[in-house]
Amino acid sequence: MINTSKHIAILGSTGSIGTQALQVISQNSQLFKVHTLTAQNNAELLIKQCLEFQPKYAVICNESKYGEVQTALAGTVTKVLSGYESVKQVVTDADIDIVITAMVGFAGLEPTIDAIKAGKDIALANKETLVVAGELITALAAKHKVRLLPVDSEHSAIFQCLVGEENNEIEKLIITASGGPFYGKTAEFLLDVTPESALKHPNWVMGAKITIDSASLMNKGLEVIEAKWLFDLDLSQIDVVVHPQSIIHSMVQFRDGSIKAQMGLPDMKLPIQYALTYPNRVKNAFKRFDFTEYPTLTFDKPDTATFRNLDIAYKALGKGGNAPCVINAANEIAVEGFLKHKTGFLAMSDIIETCMERIEFIADPNLDDYLNTDKQTRIFARELLQKMPKALTH
Amino acid sequence: MINTSKHIAILGSTGSIGTQALQVISQNSQLFKVHTLTAQNNAELLIKQCLEFQPKYAVICNESKYGEVQTALAGTVTKVLSGYESVKQVVTDADIDIVITAMVGFAGLEPTIDAIKAGKDIALANKETLVVAGELITALAAKHKVRLLPVDSEHSAIFQCLVGEENNEIEKLIITASGGPFYGKTAEFLLDVTPESALKHPNWVMGAKITIDSASLMNKGLEVIEAKWLFDLDLSQIDVVVHPQSIIHSMVQFRDGSIKAQMGLPDMKLPIQYALTYPNRVKNAFKRFDFTEYPTLTFDKPDTATFRNLDIAYKALGKGGNAPCVINAANEIAVEGFLKHKTGFLAMSDIIETCMERIEFIADPNLDDYLNTDKQTRIFARELLQKMPKALTH
Repeated sequence: MINTSKHIAILGSTGSIGTQALQVISQNSQLFKVHTLTAQNNAELLIKQCLEFQPKYAVICNESKYGEVQTALAGTVTKVLSGYESVKQVVTDADIDIVITAMVGFAGLEPTIDAIKAGKDIALANKETLVVAGELITALAAKHKVRLLPVDSEHSAIFQCLVGEENNEIEKLIITASGGPFYGKTAEFLLDVTPESALKHPNWVMGAKITIDSASLMNKGLEVIEAKWLFDLDLSQIDVVVHPQSIIHSMVQFRDGSIKAQMGLPDMKLPIQYALTYPNRVKNAFKRFDFTEYPTLTFDKPDTATFRNLDIAYKALGKGGNAPCVINAANEIAVEGFLKHKTGFLAMSDIIETCMERIEFIADPNLDDYLNTDKQTRIFARELLQKMPKALTH
Repeated sequence: MINTSKHIAILGSTGSIGTQALQVISQNSQLFKVHTLTAQNNAELLIKQCLEFQPKYAVICNESKYGEVQTALAGTVTKVLSGYESVKQVVTDADIDIVITAMVGFAGLEPTIDAIKAGKDIALANKETLVVAGELITALAAKHKVRLLPVDSEHSAIFQCLVGEENNEIEKLIITASGGPFYGKTAEFLLDVTPESALKHPNWVMGAKITIDSASLMNKGLEVIEAKWLFDLDLSQIDVVVHPQSIIHSMVQFRDGSIKAQMGLPDMKLPIQYALTYPNRVKNAFKRFDFTEYPTLTFDKPDTATFRNLDIAYKALGKGGNAPCVINAANEIAVEGFLKHKTGFLAMSDIIETCMERIEFIADPNLDDYLNTDKQTRIFARELLQKMPKALTH
């Protein structure tokens, strides 16, 4: 089995994935050592985590909170740094084995690139990295011979189903979607839904951004793009099926027609643990799935006429180039606007679609093109947020 | 991939599995060559198969039909033999790569042993072989370094889920059961059911013996025993769940709590093909599973108070020694009696239970002990068939 402990860096340690990753690590302290923790804003929790896990580095991105963290950790083994540039530096430290990229949104891209270049395996919890720059990232990972270990439950499910099937062609992936809190609702209903109701996910406890993405099906769209790059498939090979119970986390159909599924209770700790222990599985005390508690599993087609983001994501992936980067940036601004009551639930799709039409298309972008596309799209999307009525559509 | 064609012997080529195996082979003629076909009684179909597939050997077990087969195949490449002893001999032919053991019941045991000793991989469609003598067979297979490739859909599902997970401990297996044609019925209803109604399986097209076993849950009991030996597990690690749609063919729960399932339409051609092409998967034109046709999958506990055979099988496995051999022999006679209207559906369990109580227990049987146990049990069970009223129970 595993003989020496793996040294882990967690980018975004105070978020939902970050805190659950630390739970997994603390339950397997003989296997893992926390090397680095980084956080955007939550100084208080970062300090607490550092006192418990005693990492070599702690980075607080928000520089105004540096003093607070530095003072609290004075005299400990942890060296405190601040700013986004520091994140990009610490991930290259020679002692790190795996970097968990659990920060929110586009911010995950650059540190992931730096970590790959430094030869670190990536436990990929930041799906935006592959959405924005999948071609670049997967090529870089291949070049530096690092593993991209998916943490998203859907991609972890697919990854688990593919173990031992390396020589067997995939016919298609069937990615499951819970449907979110608004599954089965009409456009008319969605016109007036609040961020508060959208944040009530039926199955998964997650951060705000991904919970809204889940309600709007954009999360599933981003996952389709992520899956395309992680598993090197054509768009036509990726199906989405709504499965409200979130027990089957996704499926692989092989070329002989056989389907493998990975199942379990909706608990992110399992895919986090699998990414860290792969290819081994480690015993744990997580609650086990029991069919008597789930006597019925249901499946449905996604309603892409009402929840347009999934189709928008397929279109962006079909268009290629910087189009997925555009929809990702536009979506981040739209979600932020929705959370702040500045736009409506359905209008988010209008913002994203308008951005895809209007931002200059680049067929073969490099990293600078991605950074520029992201920047320009955000500016344009913020303008749209000001100009657009709350519910342009319907 | 596969470069040279595999030479296949099919024991029981005229049965349900045998004929489907020939379909798989004819659709992959570049991969497989039929070496030997054997049949119990169906001379007409055996002749037809030989004319099409031109095997080296054909064996008709029923010696009274030898002349008919010999005459029909005179002048062809096929050498015709007859009798059970001939089956045991031809399976050792140097050119055979894989033996598909698709004959019905206890008769599968001895040829399987001979084939293993001759170093042939076994595509195991005769579950009685492992039920009767699992310890002996698995030890023999290990000694001769041959693969036991499961053909039963449930065991194939588990086998597929275990690919690449060789170092990861199994926490438990979850074997699915359709529940058969009498799922949800009461003992009162079952008292008067006919063989004709029991033969109408809702999902699978199979031979008569296995269809009755499926209706009585004995098939699931035999599969639990088979799984214990194939996958080297404790009784407590094998659960059965009723899943009337027969889409999830079985599941493996690993020690981290993650569950893998193998799914697809109920079609034996897939597990047959997988056993023959393992570890490769070969493209085919089998109908694909579509969730829109199965929007709901349901799961239930087996009703072991009404369908007692499943519990009887667990008890026999717990008792060990020759007890599984006893229940297998008793069940074969009981099913034969039921099919001939000589006993009732529920009384089959009484016959099996009585045999388990009354046949001498042997803790550590050798092959002769198994053969004797089988023989004695059959005699005793036939006596019970005469003496017992059609519905002793209830």
